[in-house]
Amino acid sequence: MNYTVRFKIAPDADIVYSSPSGLTVMEAARQAGLDLDSPCAGNGSCGKCLVSVVTAGKEEQRLACQTKIESDLTVIVPRNLLVSNSKIKTIDPNDEKEQRIFENLQNQLEELGFTGDSGLELVTLKLKEPAIDDPMADSERLLAGLHNAMEISLHALRKLPGVLRQNNFSLTCVLDRSCGVLKVIDLMPTNGEAACKPLLTGLAIDIGTTTVAALLVDLSSGKVLASGTRANPQIPYGADVISRIIASTRPGGLELLRRAIVDECLSPLIQEMARKAGIETCQIYKAAVAANTTMTHLFTGVPPEHLRLEPYVPAFFRANGINAFDLGLHIHPEASVLIAPSVGSYVGGDISAGLFASMLFKKDTLSLFIDLGTNGELVLGSKDFLVACACSAGPAFEGGDISSGMRAAEGAIDSVRIDRKSLEPVLTVIGKGKPWGICGSGLIDLVSEFFTCGIIDSRGKFDFTHNAEKQPGVIRKRLHKDEYGMGRYILAFAEETENQKELFISEADIDNFIRAKGAIFSAIRTMLAILNSSMNDIENVFIAGGIGSGINMQNAISIGMLPNIPLERYHYIGNSALAGAYAMLKSQKAAQKIDEIAANMTYLELSSHPSYMDEFVAACFLPHTNSNLFSIAPNANTRACT
Amino acid sequence: MNYTVRFKIAPDADIVYSSPSGLTVMEAARQAGLDLDSPCAGNGSCGKCLVSVVTAGKEEQRLACQTKIESDLTVIVPRNLLVSNSKIKTIDPNDEKEQRIFENLQNQLEELGFTGDSGLELVTLKLKEPAIDDPMADSERLLAGLHNAMEISLHALRKLPGVLRQNNFSLTCVLDRSCGVLKVIDLMPTNGEAACKPLLTGLAIDIGTTTVAALLVDLSSGKVLASGTRANPQIPYGADVISRIIASTRPGGLELLRRAIVDECLSPLIQEMARKAGIETCQIYKAAVAANTTMTHLFTGVPPEHLRLEPYVPAFFRANGINAFDLGLHIHPEASVLIAPSVGSYVGGDISAGLFASMLFKKDTLSLFIDLGTNGELVLGSKDFLVACACSAGPAFEGGDISSGMRAAEGAIDSVRIDRKSLEPVLTVIGKGKPWGICGSGLIDLVSEFFTCGIIDSRGKFDFTHNAEKQPGVIRKRLHKDEYGMGRYILAFAEETENQKELFISEADIDNFIRAKGAIFSAIRTMLAILNSSMNDIENVFIAGGIGSGINMQNAISIGMLPNIPLERYHYIGNSALAGAYAMLKSQKAAQKIDEIAANMTYLELSSHPSYMDEFVAACFLPHTNSNLFSIAPNANTRACT
Repeated sequence: MNYTVRFKIAPDADIVYSSPSGLTVMEAARQAGLDLDSPCAGNGSCGKCLVSVVTAGKEEQRLACQTKIESDLTVIVPRNLLVSNSKIKTIDPNDEKEQRIFENLQNQLEELGFTGDSGLELVTLKLKEPAIDDPMADSERLLAGLHNAMEISLHALRKLPGVLRQNNFSLTCVLDRSCGVLKVIDLMPTNGEAACKPLLTGLAIDIGTTTVAALLVDLSSGKVLASGTRANPQIPYGADVISRIIASTRPGGLELLRRAIVDECLSPLIQEMARKAGIETCQIYKAAVAANTTMTHLFTGVPPEHLRLEPYVPAFFRANGINAFDLGLHIHPEASVLIAPSVGSYVGGDISAGLFASMLFKKDTLSLFIDLGTNGELVLGSKDFLVACACSAGPAFEGGDISSGMRAAEGAIDSVRIDRKSLEPVLTVIGKGKPWGICGSGLIDLVSEFFTCGIIDSRGKFDFTHNAEKQPGVIRKRLHKDEYGMGRYILAFAEETENQKELFISEADIDNFIRAKGAIFSAIRTMLAILNSSMNDIENVFIAGGIGSGINMQNAISIGMLPNIPLERYHYIGNSALAGAYAMLKSQKAAQKIDEIAANMTYLELSSHPSYMDEFVAACFLPHTNSNLFSIAPNANTRACT
Repeated sequence: MNYTVRFKIAPDADIVYSSPSGLTVMEAARQAGLDLDSPCAGNGSCGKCLVSVVTAGKEEQRLACQTKIESDLTVIVPRNLLVSNSKIKTIDPNDEKEQRIFENLQNQLEELGFTGDSGLELVTLKLKEPAIDDPMADSERLLAGLHNAMEISLHALRKLPGVLRQNNFSLTCVLDRSCGVLKVIDLMPTNGEAACKPLLTGLAIDIGTTTVAALLVDLSSGKVLASGTRANPQIPYGADVISRIIASTRPGGLELLRRAIVDECLSPLIQEMARKAGIETCQIYKAAVAANTTMTHLFTGVPPEHLRLEPYVPAFFRANGINAFDLGLHIHPEASVLIAPSVGSYVGGDISAGLFASMLFKKDTLSLFIDLGTNGELVLGSKDFLVACACSAGPAFEGGDISSGMRAAEGAIDSVRIDRKSLEPVLTVIGKGKPWGICGSGLIDLVSEFFTCGIIDSRGKFDFTHNAEKQPGVIRKRLHKDEYGMGRYILAFAEETENQKELFISEADIDNFIRAKGAIFSAIRTMLAILNSSMNDIENVFIAGGIGSGINMQNAISIGMLPNIPLERYHYIGNSALAGAYAMLKSQKAAQKIDEIAANMTYLELSSHPSYMDEFVAACFLPHTNSNLFSIAPNANTRACT
């Protein structure tokens, strides 16, 4: 028995799906091509997948993962629940601003001498045509003409006789030296009627637990031809890597997760980028992937289950010599796929690639690299040593575990100021529309502003009395206690939001956030202690990650998330994993350097350091139990609202 | 509309097939799994596919390729028309006779120092188990334990975490060094519950135009575990390489022919051999293929069309680094597949491999290698030089173009003696049953005996007068002229044959045969002339090919097919291409030697030598127009019957 389910992604689209009876709304949505956010992997505990279900004229709020389909119904899906809407940008090669970030990186690669060694080469040549007295075979004729080329791939060999005779033995070859020998992996007639003009392109990919980002790069010029992002379609299997690993151990689970990332995410993302850039996907001859250790396993189809079982061992740090065909990636079948090497179970290739992009490994003085993703990873070091650790900051920086939290996407509040006089919030929203929720950078601002204005105390609890004295009207309007006595502050009223739902932050949310910032700060303190260094020894801090359009470093310091050192030492470097993948793509020497970085990085297991728990507890205050650490503000910073 | 077609492969099997209307009987038979012999590729010109068709109680002889199915019918298929019945033999490792031929070859490999270097290795090891303070990844742990291994394949990596934990980190690895670096391509738990016990096996394959032969070899001991042959299922696309090349140029034709050899022939052959030998096909880690240039192209899916167009250039002589998966061969997916290198368009890898097996390349003195297949290939040389040529002997040695001709299979007359007194034929038949036809070795005997007894003259025409004087009864019974005045000799009367059809040889058949033997002899003469040598300089003649259980060399000399030199210089070496493939499989040095042999062989295009046509015309007599060449019989040899 099938029922008609109408998914309304109001106001712009309806999807009608004929669903077998007994599926949940979440399952039916997936089958209809809609991935709904599901941090708890569909077990009904997180409450994030709330949708409006209309049956027989009656509208009810229901959890999509817990609602079975037993009649025809209409489901109104809040747009922020949808995780699969990919964003593809064509980069105008002449738009300087767009290219600048990669030009910077290219300049840095050039400074290092890491240039012109992508391992791929386009060679155009004209061969002597065969004759009765010169009956050398096509393949041997080509290899002799190429001097150094030793091998021709089966794929190219199958095309060879036709290509040679299309334009009098003039042809262009794609040579790949990534596997040791120089190998012909593709060929096309020169000035022939080939569908594609000779062009060497490659893909840089960052597979995040939550978001996948990719660049399509012209390997000859280094120019970015298109960029795109897409939600990781594994999200319905759980928000964090542990739930994904558990999902992979179910029968067929690993293959399901592998296909989710390869077939449901990368393939369409690649196709869209290629279309936008006006190339064929078979012209993509190389790919470089940076991802955390779990994502690397799921992407390659290697069982990750031992990552979460003592003694927490990955199946591999490094994986070489893999080609696109074996991974099911729809680019040139013989394209080599580089995977940034992992350092440990919870410090992955995204960190080794990202650390390269930060150029920390060249610094003479102590520097800190922080990647704020679904988890927090930190590297402390210089050109002489590197120490890495992961801390379970939890998903708060990506909007997880926060009532009105969301990823840094359209509709997210990404910065907040509390007016010192009126105590009213002043918000900015990504996309400039009405807000849906609040993302990581907005939360940092919000907590910092609350604390600075005295709206919350150093344990993150609302100070009803003091504030009501100052602004009784606003406080009455915005600050409430819920039925359990927990305080909440309304950031936007239902009529002001996109989904007509009150947008608020509760004391529980602030508590989750404080634990997240505490995890980061205590990790820094623990590492410094082990290295016998102090905060002030840190000359550079590189903050990476997609938690917003940027972070207000001052605010992050004032809440005790980042060390109280001069602001000019802070550098927000965006998606460094993607930038590192770009470097691997462009230069074999860069890839080798990233290998060295990973091999030389010492992995520190924080939980095995007795001082870490004490540091963590001490850091779960605003700004810290030891207020001396933040007593001298590096810049003008007033504690109280005057 | 479907009709019921009952194929009777009398008396032992009926196959009932529901055929769409409009198919030919040949096409319906193919779809029902029966491959019918079709030398003319189904265009109705050769008349070989004659079957009995019974419709509505009426029985008629019809050509299967020309008869459309337009009603229910019964088709009686003569058994010799079936080409797909494969023959698989399990070799008893203790049966000395069966192993002897490969023991001889192994001994020769050992003499050359070509031993223990198959490139594959089984290594058993026990790794230290990981711990909290030793969290090295599985892959890095394994590679460190293997010292020299540099890489692990994706296939093996995916199995690694499970295999390691099945028996406390004890495991057995299959290492492959064929691609330069030492690579782990498979692994299994030691003493675990794996389906297959560790065993390294390989396949030697000879893809002939007509017959495919293969050996399953234990790579550690060199023992042959099973051997098998199967008709080449491309036969319905034409008997010779030229028809196959033409068939490959039709839309989808190349893929059709590639699948015929890989999916319809090799896959079932490999499966049957593996079953007989009690191993799994995934335990086959290497393959070596020897084949003529056209077959090599069709097997790899590389367009062969320019082989038959001036200036007759192959797409490749050598193809390296191909693995089983890319070829669609159902053995271990990462098994490397070696292909014996070709020398020219009509001197293929079967010749370079076969020449190695003959050990001619080690001889101090002039030696001759002849491969009698669907075509004839010759190599003249010594350890100092090698000259190769191909002559269009045509398919006569394999029974083609001969009225009652057939391949050397069950039912074939493989030797003939004419009783000197009665002039009655004395036949031996392969399988010892009633005869179906006559194969190459039988034809050599028959023509030799006819000529020796004076039944035919030196132009191959029957001498009615002279023979009728001697044995009027026999001659009246057996020697006839057909309606066009062409003589024919009945070898077996309808009631004596398996298919109840008269088995005869006509003057046209003898003419075809004389052209075939003339092509061989004139090729030898031309090569000798170019090298300024004489017949008597040839110290060894190696005859290879599957033309029968062996050749009566004396008879072959007496008809002027082979040089008139002492019989002890002749060596029948059987399927030398298969033996060469076996050597490639066993030893990387042997494979390298075969590469050198091919690279150093000079290809001689006979048709461009003006003397060849004259030589050919002169050789199209019995024994030769210059009877001095055969005047002094090397052994006792009486011209006339006394």
